[in-house]
Amino acid sequence: MSAHPLEEILHPKSIAVVGASGKPASAGYNFTERLLEYGYKGKIYPVNPKYSDICGLKVYPSLKDIPGSVDYVISCVPAEEVLSMIDECGQKGVKAVHIFTARFSETGRKEAAELEQESLRRARKWGIRLIGPNCLGLYYPREGITFGYSFPMEPGSVGVASQSGAGVALFIHAARLRGIRFSKVISYGNALDLNECDFLEYFTPDSETKIILLYVEGVKDGKRFFDTLSQAAAIKPVIILKGGRGDSAKRTIASHTASLTSPMKVWEALIKQAGAIYAENFDEMVDLAVSFSYLPPICGPRVGIAGGGGGPSVVATDECEEVGLDVVPISQEFREEIKRKGISIWDWVDNPVDISILGGSDFTTLDMLEMMARSHSFDLLLTLIFDHPFRQYKALSAALRGQAKDYIKIKRETSMPVLVVVPEKSSGLEEYDRWSWRILGELRTKLIEAGVAIYPSFKRAAIAARKLIDYYQARE
Amino acid sequence: MSAHPLEEILHPKSIAVVGASGKPASAGYNFTERLLEYGYKGKIYPVNPKYSDICGLKVYPSLKDIPGSVDYVISCVPAEEVLSMIDECGQKGVKAVHIFTARFSETGRKEAAELEQESLRRARKWGIRLIGPNCLGLYYPREGITFGYSFPMEPGSVGVASQSGAGVALFIHAARLRGIRFSKVISYGNALDLNECDFLEYFTPDSETKIILLYVEGVKDGKRFFDTLSQAAAIKPVIILKGGRGDSAKRTIASHTASLTSPMKVWEALIKQAGAIYAENFDEMVDLAVSFSYLPPICGPRVGIAGGGGGPSVVATDECEEVGLDVVPISQEFREEIKRKGISIWDWVDNPVDISILGGSDFTTLDMLEMMARSHSFDLLLTLIFDHPFRQYKALSAALRGQAKDYIKIKRETSMPVLVVVPEKSSGLEEYDRWSWRILGELRTKLIEAGVAIYPSFKRAAIAARKLIDYYQARE
Repeated sequence: MSAHPLEEILHPKSIAVVGASGKPASAGYNFTERLLEYGYKGKIYPVNPKYSDICGLKVYPSLKDIPGSVDYVISCVPAEEVLSMIDECGQKGVKAVHIFTARFSETGRKEAAELEQESLRRARKWGIRLIGPNCLGLYYPREGITFGYSFPMEPGSVGVASQSGAGVALFIHAARLRGIRFSKVISYGNALDLNECDFLEYFTPDSETKIILLYVEGVKDGKRFFDTLSQAAAIKPVIILKGGRGDSAKRTIASHTASLTSPMKVWEALIKQAGAIYAENFDEMVDLAVSFSYLPPICGPRVGIAGGGGGPSVVATDECEEVGLDVVPISQEFREEIKRKGISIWDWVDNPVDISILGGSDFTTLDMLEMMARSHSFDLLLTLIFDHPFRQYKALSAALRGQAKDYIKIKRETSMPVLVVVPEKSSGLEEYDRWSWRILGELRTKLIEAGVAIYPSFKRAAIAARKLIDYYQARE
Repeated sequence: MSAHPLEEILHPKSIAVVGASGKPASAGYNFTERLLEYGYKGKIYPVNPKYSDICGLKVYPSLKDIPGSVDYVISCVPAEEVLSMIDECGQKGVKAVHIFTARFSETGRKEAAELEQESLRRARKWGIRLIGPNCLGLYYPREGITFGYSFPMEPGSVGVASQSGAGVALFIHAARLRGIRFSKVISYGNALDLNECDFLEYFTPDSETKIILLYVEGVKDGKRFFDTLSQAAAIKPVIILKGGRGDSAKRTIASHTASLTSPMKVWEALIKQAGAIYAENFDEMVDLAVSFSYLPPICGPRVGIAGGGGGPSVVATDECEEVGLDVVPISQEFREEIKRKGISIWDWVDNPVDISILGGSDFTTLDMLEMMARSHSFDLLLTLIFDHPFRQYKALSAALRGQAKDYIKIKRETSMPVLVVVPEKSSGLEEYDRWSWRILGELRTKLIEAGVAIYPSFKRAAIAARKLIDYYQARE
């Protein structure tokens, strides 16, 4: 079996940035500087007749002036120069071009769409594969290739193909902070040549990729997509965010069954049928990437809730129940066990565990969590880092650090899936210097380092848990 | 008409903290220190036979040793001392007692519930009104009374009554960061004497309160609650979060119509019928408080979306449509107007406005927003502070500051409701020192100072907008 064409594209020995620029806010500068910053090992050739030096690199007036061979080209030239750029690539023996250049079919203009098609014909003539146009291209940390600032330099095991560059860049920024690292990310825009099916096919056997994420707006070949998706989903978790579920989806459905079904529900059903997991937005994609990366399989819906005060626990219970989790009361056997230990609040404590009733008692949240993790009446635990209203620096820091330590202990010493909520706050400038913010930051860092799945709210954790349960139950 | 009994309770000339403590993590210390810190103008009397000085204040062995009169008592004594404490309050002529003390009926124990009832009988005998037990009591910034750290010292116009102390404290912390300030907040726990109906009745004519928020778990008199709620909602916006929508609600519904209705939907319907606004969790309560505080009425569902890149705009469109907002395409008339201005992308630009197609064009997001705000085809604008994937310090700071400035301009110069999304991120410790975080913090601060409604995600903004539309449409 020959290697997938993407294998070669992803491992270029040299990259030329055609339309490289010396202006720091420009794409032509960004791509060049990022390759240097991320330590790309191959040759980097900026191309632009107007410059002689960009970021300390020699600049070539044209592709043909480059002394060595060029495997991969990043095109930052204007749309009207793309055809001649492709011809020059062909003459130079370039294997793949990432067309960052935009203003093609997405403009809705006939001549732009024709130019796009002509670009494809030219590329095929030369045997060149295209990524794009209208996209940010590759982020492959192992190879030192990237398109965004502040992306992790160290690699991970999440592979992403995204039709939106802006969306996937925001996603990478957000997911990084939750402990996600990436095998390779491809922003592929208009999908003129290589498309979502090619990327799915590539990721399916890819040993560097354990989880596949996909953001698609349009799918060119529905049958191939469904088959490829089903094959991929049989091997590893595939999470899909479908953008454009509204009008266009409505039209598709209307022409198919004339139903007035919710388009979102239809997409959910199709994705589920293929064995993949549906994400409603980029935030949910982050939550699902975290869940599949850090949690063991969740085999049922019985959830134990701990760490919050009364009201937050009650509302967390509602939110769990509303997505189909069972906040089961503790069993009679469980209660008898607490009683035998001589715990004074044996008759009172329950699930959810209200942290405020444990204070001053002879029973701790950790005691309760350890019992829940050992008992066979819970399938998962949902816990909160609880920012106590009274306590100030010393007492609050100690309490919060204690909570994080307890959750890490449970995670390490049991096989129970533990989801930890560390609430987010819309901080203004001054909060970044406050101790209470820094402690939350410290705890997020510690929890992630310990391999704990963290979430910004109970609701988001509950939704992610429910989707994992559905996924694992469907595979049984 | 005589003043509401709460009027006197909220303006005590002296407060005694019975069970005051010198231990910084304790409630008896916290209540005493907070009164000093927040500048309560009346007399503060810590009471505890074991101390002579707490926070520099003289401590009295018992209430009767206090030389002056005592209007209001905060009880931090153990449950078994509450009856004698109430008797001492009666002898001292105390008007109201906030029973912070817990371990009453919430334990589910018969003797604890009896003790609670006996406390009520004693209080009635002496003519004392009770807040609680099992609650955090009052936060009234104008009077310098508070129960939590980092609550705003300056007053505002949001009034809250909450059955959960932990929940409302987290809520105050989160809402503060979105620009919300409070008239008075009452955490009332078990509602033994004063209850949700009393607080609603008090807030309804209260001139310091423009918006009422309520967190309730149980309601003692359904008929009185519905009537009081309807009366309050006729005067000002009332936002309700009902905790415990699961099992108990299910039982209620089963015994009523034996339907398999979602309990959440039933609560939503009841609250809507009373003319109030339903919040699903504390986060949504924050979003609604922000929306009613900062936005003019939203009179219809036609939304213009701007500020994001392609993918985020597409998903924002889906999320808007899925909650029943209309992401209307720009009208022919609107397009003709852009064309007349000689804008090169007149045929391409649309709603949502993809910021990436404006870059390098002769048309800015501000131009588009100004036209949308003036046109009569939009009822609200939903915009994003867009953290660009390429740009670094100088270019990104300038771009983000420019976006915030544009949104403030639109808000100031037009009557259009503008909802601005400033995404939140689960920051670890090191992020607090990064420039990109500080710029977002700076922008949140500036936007809030300019009276702009900010939200952490498109989805949360869209849900809040939809609830405001429903509210204003129902009132027409």
